Amino acid sequence: MKREVALGIDIGGTNTKFGFIDRNGEFLTSGSILTAQHADILDFLKELYMAIEKTFDEIRTDYVLVGIGIGAPNGNYYKGTIEYAPNLPWPGVIHFTDMLKEYYPHLPVYLTNDADAAAIGEMIYGGAKGMKDFIVITLGTGLGSGIVSNGHLIYGHDGFAGELGHVIVSPNGRQCGCGRQGCLETYVSATGVKRTAYKMMSKYNYPSDLRNIPFNEMTAQLVWESAVKGDMIAINTFKYTGKMLGEALANVVAITSPEAIFLMGGLSKAGDILFDPTKDHMEINMMKVFSNKVKLLPSKLVKNAAIYGASALVWDEMKERSW
Amino acid sequence: MKREVALGIDIGGTNTKFGFIDRNGEFLTSGSILTAQHADILDFLKELYMAIEKTFDEIRTDYVLVGIGIGAPNGNYYKGTIEYAPNLPWPGVIHFTDMLKEYYPHLPVYLTNDADAAAIGEMIYGGAKGMKDFIVITLGTGLGSGIVSNGHLIYGHDGFAGELGHVIVSPNGRQCGCGRQGCLETYVSATGVKRTAYKMMSKYNYPSDLRNIPFNEMTAQLVWESAVKGDMIAINTFKYTGKMLGEALANVVAITSPEAIFLMGGLSKAGDILFDPTKDHMEINMMKVFSNKVKLLPSKLVKNAAIYGASALVWDEMKERSW
Repeated sequence: MKREVALGIDIGGTNTKFGFIDRNGEFLTSGSILTAQHADILDFLKELYMAIEKTFDEIRTDYVLVGIGIGAPNGNYYKGTIEYAPNLPWPGVIHFTDMLKEYYPHLPVYLTNDADAAAIGEMIYGGAKGMKDFIVITLGTGLGSGIVSNGHLIYGHDGFAGELGHVIVSPNGRQCGCGRQGCLETYVSATGVKRTAYKMMSKYNYPSDLRNIPFNEMTAQLVWESAVKGDMIAINTFKYTGKMLGEALANVVAITSPEAIFLMGGLSKAGDILFDPTKDHMEINMMKVFSNKVKLLPSKLVKNAAIYGASALVWDEMKERSW
Repeated sequence: MKREVALGIDIGGTNTKFGFIDRNGEFLTSGSILTAQHADILDFLKELYMAIEKTFDEIRTDYVLVGIGIGAPNGNYYKGTIEYAPNLPWPGVIHFTDMLKEYYPHLPVYLTNDADAAAIGEMIYGGAKGMKDFIVITLGTGLGSGIVSNGHLIYGHDGFAGELGHVIVSPNGRQCGCGRQGCLETYVSATGVKRTAYKMMSKYNYPSDLRNIPFNEMTAQLVWESAVKGDMIAINTFKYTGKMLGEALANVVAITSPEAIFLMGGLSKAGDILFDPTKDHMEINMMKVFSNKVKLLPSKLVKNAAIYGASALVWDEMKERSW
C-alpha cells in the first residue's frame, strides 16, 4: 500500500521551493523554480505544476499525495489568497488556492502566511509537538509570528492576526515599512539589528570595526561576528535587541499565556547572545503569575523550515477532521 | 416537559450573587449571600447551597437545572480553583468546583475568572452572538479582559491568559498593584481615571471643581460628572484615558484581529466621552490592514452581567459537546 505524503510550497520573492514530506517529518524530495521571472501568475503556476509533477515522479510508486500546503507572504488562510505582497511579482489580490486547484481539483489545498505556516510546522514536526499553547517568532528581514492557542492557530476575524512585528513598542519610534512608527520589527529583525548598531555607534565611544562599514553594506551577520569577537558596539546591539524583544514577549505572555516561545529564522541563529538578554528582559517584565513558566527555545526546524511549515498545514487539517 | 436552566454564580469580595438563566437569556430568579462574613469556605458553601436551593424552589416545577457556572476573581478554568484572590476571605488555593460538586455530584460545574465569564456571556447572550473573534474589556476598579479566538476563549497554557490589564504600556510608568510599573490598568480603569485627574490638575491651569476634592475622596464618577458639565480637567482626563486605551487596543488587534471589542463595567458607562477618544487613537495607531474593520461597542449585558457571564459557561460547554 502506498504511503501518504504532503506537498509543501514556500513562495518567496526570488525562489519558490517545494518539498514532499511525510507525516513523521521525513523530507523525501524537493525542487524549486524562480518566482521573480514570472510576471504572469498563470505562467508561474504552469511551470510550478510541471516542476512538482516531475519531482513527484521520483517517489510516485511508493507515495500518494494527500494534500498541498502553501506558505506565502501576505497569505490569507480563510480566502486562500495572496494579497498585495510587496516582494512578489503579482499585484493586488491573487486567488492562489483556487488557481492551483485547477491543476489539482481532487486535493485539498491550504494557504497561509509564512509565519503561521512556520508555527504549524513547529507543532507538527518540531519542538512544539504536543503543545497546545505556544508562539513561533520568525526573525528575518522582518519579524513574523504565528500564535497557537488551545491547539489552533489564531487567524482572527479576517485571517490577519499574529502581526506581532507590528505591535508598536515605542510611540514615535523608528519608521516602519508599514507606514507607522515604533513597530517591534524595526528593532527586532535583521534590519533592526543593523539600525541598532548605528544607534550604538552614536551613543558609545567604544572602538569597533563596525565603524568602517557604511550603513548600506552592514548586515546582522557582520554585527554578530563582531559580537562573538567581543566588540562592545556589537554586544550592546544584541543586548538592546534582546531587551526590546523580551519586553514585547512579556506583554504577549499576559495576553495568550504560552507554554513556550520559539525563535526561528536567520537572526535566531545568533544563539545565547540574543537569547540571554531576551530571556532576562522577558522575566523582569512579566507578571509574577507567569514567572519562570514560559520556555524560550530555538526552533527545531533548522533546514527547509518554510517547506516543512507549508506541508504541515495538510497534516494539521487532517488532524482536525479526524474527530 | 421541564425546560433547561443554568445557574450562574458571581463571587465578589462583599456579596456572592447568583441567578437562574435559560438558554435564551431569560433571567428567571436570583439570590445572594454575604461573602465576607464566611472566613471558613465550608460554611460559605453550606449557606450558598441552602440559598440556591431555596431560590430554585420558585421555579423547580417548570425547570431542570443542567449545570453551574461560576465567575470568581483569580478563577482558573482548567483547575476549577480560586487562587490567592486578594479580595476574598479564603487564603491560598481553593478547589472551588470540587467543593461545590459535593453538593451537586451529578451536575457539570465550571469556573473561570470574572472577565472570561463576561466574554462568554457576551457571546451567548449579548452583542457578540454569532461572533467568533472578539474581546471583552471590563472596566471597574481594575481592567479585566476575555479574548475569544475562533469561538474559544483564550485560556493559555496555565489558564491565566487574557491579562490585558497587565500589559505594560509605559515602561517605568505608574506603580501597579501587581508589583510592576506602567500596566494598562493603572491608566485605564476607575482608579486610573482618578489618578489621571490629578495628573491633569498638575499639568493644566484650568479652573475645576475637582481641585476641591482630596485624592482619597475622588471617584471616576465625579470626574465623569464634571466632564459632562464641560470641566476641562475632567475632559482632558477622559481624552488621556481613551488615548491610552486606544493605543493598547491597536496593539492587541495586531495580535488577535477581533471583529469587535466590547467595553463593559462601570467606567464603560461614561459613553462617548470615553469611546470617542478610544476609537480615534485605536484607528490612528492600527496597521492599515485593520483600519475601520474593528467595532468598538458597549456591552449588551448591562444588568447582572457577572451572573449572565457565569451562567453562560454552562451553555457554552454544552455547545462544545453537541458536535
